[in-house]
Amino acid sequence: MKEGEPLHLKTSVTGSNGVVQALLTDLYQITMAYAYWKSEKMNDASVFDLYFRKNPFSGEFTIFAGLEECLKLMQSFHFSDSDVEYLKTAMPQTTDPAFFIYLKNISARDVTLTAVPEGEVVFPKIPLLTVSGPLAVVQLLETPLLNLVNYASLVATNAARFRIAAGPNTVLLEFGLRRAQGPDGGLSASRYCYLGGFDGTSNVLAGKMFGIPVRGTHAHAFITSFINLQDVKFRTLVSADGSREEDFVSLCLKYQQQLPSVIDFLPDQVMEGELAAFISFALAFPDGFLALIDTYDVIRSGLPNFCTVAMALNELGYQAQGIRLDSGDLSYLSKVVKGKFITMAAKFDLPWFENLTIVASNDINEDTIHSLNQQGHTINCYGIGTHLVTCQKQPALGCVFKLVEINTKARIKLSEDVEKVTIPGRKKVYRLYGADGTALVDLLQDASEPAPQVGQRVLCRHPIQESKRAYVIPAAVKSLHITWWKQGKVIEHLPTLTELRERTKKSLSTLRPDHKRALNPTPYKVSVSSDLYTYIHELWLESAPIGELS
Amino acid sequence: MKEGEPLHLKTSVTGSNGVVQALLTDLYQITMAYAYWKSEKMNDASVFDLYFRKNPFSGEFTIFAGLEECLKLMQSFHFSDSDVEYLKTAMPQTTDPAFFIYLKNISARDVTLTAVPEGEVVFPKIPLLTVSGPLAVVQLLETPLLNLVNYASLVATNAARFRIAAGPNTVLLEFGLRRAQGPDGGLSASRYCYLGGFDGTSNVLAGKMFGIPVRGTHAHAFITSFINLQDVKFRTLVSADGSREEDFVSLCLKYQQQLPSVIDFLPDQVMEGELAAFISFALAFPDGFLALIDTYDVIRSGLPNFCTVAMALNELGYQAQGIRLDSGDLSYLSKVVKGKFITMAAKFDLPWFENLTIVASNDINEDTIHSLNQQGHTINCYGIGTHLVTCQKQPALGCVFKLVEINTKARIKLSEDVEKVTIPGRKKVYRLYGADGTALVDLLQDASEPAPQVGQRVLCRHPIQESKRAYVIPAAVKSLHITWWKQGKVIEHLPTLTELRERTKKSLSTLRPDHKRALNPTPYKVSVSSDLYTYIHELWLESAPIGELS
Repeated sequence: MKEGEPLHLKTSVTGSNGVVQALLTDLYQITMAYAYWKSEKMNDASVFDLYFRKNPFSGEFTIFAGLEECLKLMQSFHFSDSDVEYLKTAMPQTTDPAFFIYLKNISARDVTLTAVPEGEVVFPKIPLLTVSGPLAVVQLLETPLLNLVNYASLVATNAARFRIAAGPNTVLLEFGLRRAQGPDGGLSASRYCYLGGFDGTSNVLAGKMFGIPVRGTHAHAFITSFINLQDVKFRTLVSADGSREEDFVSLCLKYQQQLPSVIDFLPDQVMEGELAAFISFALAFPDGFLALIDTYDVIRSGLPNFCTVAMALNELGYQAQGIRLDSGDLSYLSKVVKGKFITMAAKFDLPWFENLTIVASNDINEDTIHSLNQQGHTINCYGIGTHLVTCQKQPALGCVFKLVEINTKARIKLSEDVEKVTIPGRKKVYRLYGADGTALVDLLQDASEPAPQVGQRVLCRHPIQESKRAYVIPAAVKSLHITWWKQGKVIEHLPTLTELRERTKKSLSTLRPDHKRALNPTPYKVSVSSDLYTYIHELWLESAPIGELS
Repeated sequence: MKEGEPLHLKTSVTGSNGVVQALLTDLYQITMAYAYWKSEKMNDASVFDLYFRKNPFSGEFTIFAGLEECLKLMQSFHFSDSDVEYLKTAMPQTTDPAFFIYLKNISARDVTLTAVPEGEVVFPKIPLLTVSGPLAVVQLLETPLLNLVNYASLVATNAARFRIAAGPNTVLLEFGLRRAQGPDGGLSASRYCYLGGFDGTSNVLAGKMFGIPVRGTHAHAFITSFINLQDVKFRTLVSADGSREEDFVSLCLKYQQQLPSVIDFLPDQVMEGELAAFISFALAFPDGFLALIDTYDVIRSGLPNFCTVAMALNELGYQAQGIRLDSGDLSYLSKVVKGKFITMAAKFDLPWFENLTIVASNDINEDTIHSLNQQGHTINCYGIGTHLVTCQKQPALGCVFKLVEINTKARIKLSEDVEKVTIPGRKKVYRLYGADGTALVDLLQDASEPAPQVGQRVLCRHPIQESKRAYVIPAAVKSLHITWWKQGKVIEHLPTLTELRERTKKSLSTLRPDHKRALNPTPYKVSVSSDLYTYIHELWLESAPIGELS
């Protein structure tokens, strides 16, 4: 352990291949590896489950994400020479030098990883990943696997909740980069919000890396950087069909004279700098004019200026796209804006004016959207940042990684809190569906038990509470676990991000609405087979210390 | 804008030099740059302030962090050929191709960056950074600068708050990697928690990169992976002085017979697997034996097993380090543990036994520490994860980046919320101190005003509210802003992380305790000079729209 001098190494979490480094782990994984190695337990056959105990955001579902990154970690998992040199300084001097040679040769080739497919709806206690292989290696994988699954699943779930709140037809854009927890937090947010149901991002690097549609127009600074119309240096715009060329500023000023009687504003109250900024933006993006209208005063200045420029564009054959509101009473303002758009559409016989995009983007969270839905609004696009990407409502998903079997012996971790008792042994996970395609219950079984059969009665039991049990006759049964990584290779096709997004949507559609609602949702049941129930309780008894009742 | 197909590019936020890429920005920065370029405003002389409006965590102070990363961004800021190729696909087809040539040649060479030194205590409205230069370039820097300052400052502040809660002599370890918001979120957390006053981290990569002391022992899985004493394959330990070699298991079993009468436990109630795990760990780390004692039962099993192994180690000349509690009533358990340690120390005349480390690490947040302080406890080390690194109490610091001057004209951004009105123009920031070294008030002045003088009366005014003003006679005056980046170079020495940590500590020590307390802290005053006050209100009046009162 050295004092805090920077070593002038590059400050990247990823290796040259862009994948998380093996050293991004907790020191205790290394110290445990050493203790295992010292007692020749490092190759003990271990099985670990990665799961969470509680759905986030007071909800009753979670979207599983991060699997592709986990598989990339498996592929590249090794300690470089410089890692091992560093570890020699971090470990006690008494450490056997042969251990570092062992570390240098570690890889994930003898590890097997089975997991729920990425994008699937999951629930507490379900092993999202089951990782088996040499004890020391699997233990070393714990921290990076948890890191990669925890935030990915959390933010994908958050995005899915915003999607449910906003409904299927509202455009949802992720604008969170500036408030994300670090650069990579921003990049992960963009990726997994898209997976969870968003339509695009402002994050350009995410667009380049993952092919996510990127969106954005301008900020308040753009508006305030224009003082008056003299700031518009190039004023000419060629019409869409190329037939005419106009002084666009003059054209706008013409409409500024016409419009006050139509949409009721005073030309001497509009801000000239704002008009100059809108004109400049329209000259740069005649086909993509979307204006931020709340810099000064939405109703007196922003909206009239927008309509002015939109009409001038229209005269030259271009159709404006819409407006963005970034402050104020979004319900009220959106309705006022919509009203003026309807007036404009009718007065000038331009039906598209009625359907212009109204973007809202002021510190919006899931509850804001529910509240706007109740108040009424005409917003058809949300730009969502801080609350989405930092998951303000609950900024961490508490995934854990627990040993469930060692050298074919099932292990149970007891706890005074019965909800924290682990479900021992290597398991299979099934989802049972009703005749209408609705997911009824998830069922954990010991890996050796035969799969539940369609049309046959299955006893589903609560893992701990004896009285909670029910017979289910499934119309369909899906085995949730797939083996993705075996013998040093990814052995299954990895879906594209777009395919993952589709899977999320489809998987959510199999869930009953009452499990998905924001207020007091019904818990989805995760059960164990009768045999597994018995086995849990036998092991529990075995592990109980001898002595008086506690 | 393309559909969401992965492009199979490397998924790293950093370039090959490990620094954040220029493309990690919002698309609207690119669209604004194009609109500026189109109207030949791209080189307008602009000044932007980066600041926040409210201290996080219901507190009254913030630690500024992230500056070194900002300066690295300045150094490497450019768009690669592949970035520009991507941007051609993301921008409308109508975009003038000459713009992309302009983009390719962009750098931060004409940008000047002044900032508060990293690690300094800061307050709302103070410009943390002032960035001046060509409008389009400074605008492009906005998103990555905000991203780099926001989380760094937030988590450093959180760490400082934990330090204040725990007091100066408790060891604080950051254990958050697995719950952090992405891999880089974890790395940033380790770095800035150390800056904010933590003593070490579990994050090995952070240890390698930043020289932060790394700490860690073992997890519950280590304990449960041992079933009985047969699992201890190598039983021999050589004494510290090399004079004898013992069967360490037998030695432990000898003490297991001796201790029950001393610290009151039943040998048939201790878990044999746990003892096996402790013995194996002690064999691997005879000098560093710190045991997690809550896997089964702290009082009946974990603590007796620890004392057993510690005594066997002692016989061979090794001193155990202590125990970790990861569940249960930490106040009560720590006191029980301490009591037994005192008994052991007295009985065996081993004074160090009384002072063994007692680590607590179960989901601890700032309030838990305050509550433990009230209840009484004997914990002398905390391992803190989720709440620290995700900043659960408030997961985002709302830094903003506002245009305050364009072509030497001051700009003001009005808002219906007066707290959101920007302070216009290029400013200087002074901190005025009392005779005892306590910070009295921060003062913003127009850059052209002379600095306040020691021993001379200075009128400090609230920027908005006329009635709030006071005369201050400073015993010392510090100019808070330093120019770090100019003409394409970092022109000031950058402190090491250890130096930044010291600065944080020192800067916090100049702050009155009532500003730092957890409950109802007193706000620290940030004021403006009389001239700046007048100027703000003149500009405000100018920008007011003509019309009826609103």
